[in-house]
Amino acid sequence: MSETILNLLPLHPGEAEEFEAIAPGAAHIYARRSSVTREQLAAATVLLGWPKGEDLRQAVRLKWFQTMWAGTEEYDGFLPQGALFTSSSGSNSRSVAEHMLTGLMAVCRHLPSYLDSQRSHIWKDEGPMKTILGGTVLVAGAGNVGSAFGRLCQGLGARTIGLKRTVSGPIEGFDEVRSMDELDTLLPQADVVALALPHSSQTAGLINAERIARMKDDAILISAGRGSVLDQDALARAMTAGKLWGAALDVTDPEPLPANHSLWDVPNLLLTPHVAGGMRLEITRRRCVEMAQENLRRYLAGEKLHNLVL
Amino acid sequence: MSETILNLLPLHPGEAEEFEAIAPGAAHIYARRSSVTREQLAAATVLLGWPKGEDLRQAVRLKWFQTMWAGTEEYDGFLPQGALFTSSSGSNSRSVAEHMLTGLMAVCRHLPSYLDSQRSHIWKDEGPMKTILGGTVLVAGAGNVGSAFGRLCQGLGARTIGLKRTVSGPIEGFDEVRSMDELDTLLPQADVVALALPHSSQTAGLINAERIARMKDDAILISAGRGSVLDQDALARAMTAGKLWGAALDVTDPEPLPANHSLWDVPNLLLTPHVAGGMRLEITRRRCVEMAQENLRRYLAGEKLHNLVL
Repeated sequence: MSETILNLLPLHPGEAEEFEAIAPGAAHIYARRSSVTREQLAAATVLLGWPKGEDLRQAVRLKWFQTMWAGTEEYDGFLPQGALFTSSSGSNSRSVAEHMLTGLMAVCRHLPSYLDSQRSHIWKDEGPMKTILGGTVLVAGAGNVGSAFGRLCQGLGARTIGLKRTVSGPIEGFDEVRSMDELDTLLPQADVVALALPHSSQTAGLINAERIARMKDDAILISAGRGSVLDQDALARAMTAGKLWGAALDVTDPEPLPANHSLWDVPNLLLTPHVAGGMRLEITRRRCVEMAQENLRRYLAGEKLHNLVL
Repeated sequence: MSETILNLLPLHPGEAEEFEAIAPGAAHIYARRSSVTREQLAAATVLLGWPKGEDLRQAVRLKWFQTMWAGTEEYDGFLPQGALFTSSSGSNSRSVAEHMLTGLMAVCRHLPSYLDSQRSHIWKDEGPMKTILGGTVLVAGAGNVGSAFGRLCQGLGARTIGLKRTVSGPIEGFDEVRSMDELDTLLPQADVVALALPHSSQTAGLINAERIARMKDDAILISAGRGSVLDQDALARAMTAGKLWGAALDVTDPEPLPANHSLWDVPNLLLTPHVAGGMRLEITRRRCVEMAQENLRRYLAGEKLHNLVL
């Protein structure tokens, strides 16, 4: 039976031809999330990209859907029964890891204070800085993002420890992989503690007042993943009292952070509005396209797909 | 003849003993820049650290002086005749290179705008970002700082080109080393242009309006070294008109930058007050101590000293 591939990916010139070369016997339909039609959805046996959840209900012939995002919550309950579902998990890991490193280096060098001075046209020296060279970076969450961040930190001369629930062998980017059960023992050794964890009943509130107290007085906290992992009120209190060198958070709970929250004004705390990943880098977009192409090749060859959700 | 070593370096516990182990037959005097006495200076045959320029005139027995800084202008005209003079050139290269990378990544990810929003308690997405992964970084100045910055950029996946007056072979940190004469040809290919040059008649005004115009519309300019290398009025005009993605400058001309200068308020331009190097990192201080120790060993063995200025 011939395939009809409905492609909603943000393609660049030449990329449609790449898909057609992988599946020369298929019908290829290109559309946008905003303008895809009921007929296009009804015809599709394969769907690639970013449809609206409710649009999936129209895709009655669908056998496989690959979303262009790493997260898949948007499609819970909308997928036609029996269809395969794959994500683009890992596509934005490099982007998130670079954002984490940028925030880390920014607080090492007091960029928040330097920017305040710049806005006031003041030339003022903020004194000692930090480097991660020779330091220990503890990364809670040893998935794609944690591993990519670990690699970047190793490249800058840090020793990295990745924490995961079940240790099953070495992971790229980490000098050591240890069990999450050892968190309390390892926190006092870390110069940097980085959170790259999803929300779950196990991760919610993981970094609480007690664990912040276990960190070095001049440690740096980095948070990506999900804001619920961190007790941000406890962090604001501890940092306002002088604990920690600095922090860089890209996620909060809730999002957006309420305008009256104390976190906004904590000294040497950098807050960005959940922008580490997404499609903000061209390399992320291209990686999504390549992941879809690789899975399409596998799908047509009857091989197991990567990043299977269902 | 026995040596008297006057040590003005900022030593940590155990480091005096390191010097004494290297020169067990010498007299070791430890003092501070602010409290060193006329008698101590008059006794010294070797002087290490950061004396005042005029204090050097008291050091009538001096045979060798090693300053703890990379720059040596402070001592012009103060050195007793016949004394050897060495610098700590290279000791803060890593610090300056990390500062350059921090500024580069900060403007790649719109940190100046994100911090403005943070100060106003506003959760606002600034859209597309940049990465140096896969990009070309052109570094004008292939000395210690340029080389260290090149290495960091290579570690993040960039291709690096170092520019120097006379090309004499490969230099660590650069995929290619080219002649400064090729600057105009290479500028249009660069995603990042980084300046790591001293002030000289040849470097003054090197990056002028015409050369800024040759850069890619979305390139990033990084400036360390000396501010006179860049026509900062031309940069402010070009960026205000929409040229370049961003810039990060740690040096200006003059310093401090006058409070009414247009550079302070250029969008996505990060300005820090010449703080990339100095003694802001412990690794810089320790490197200075190690450089002094290695040169002391060489001095006592009659070998050629590193970083000879005179």
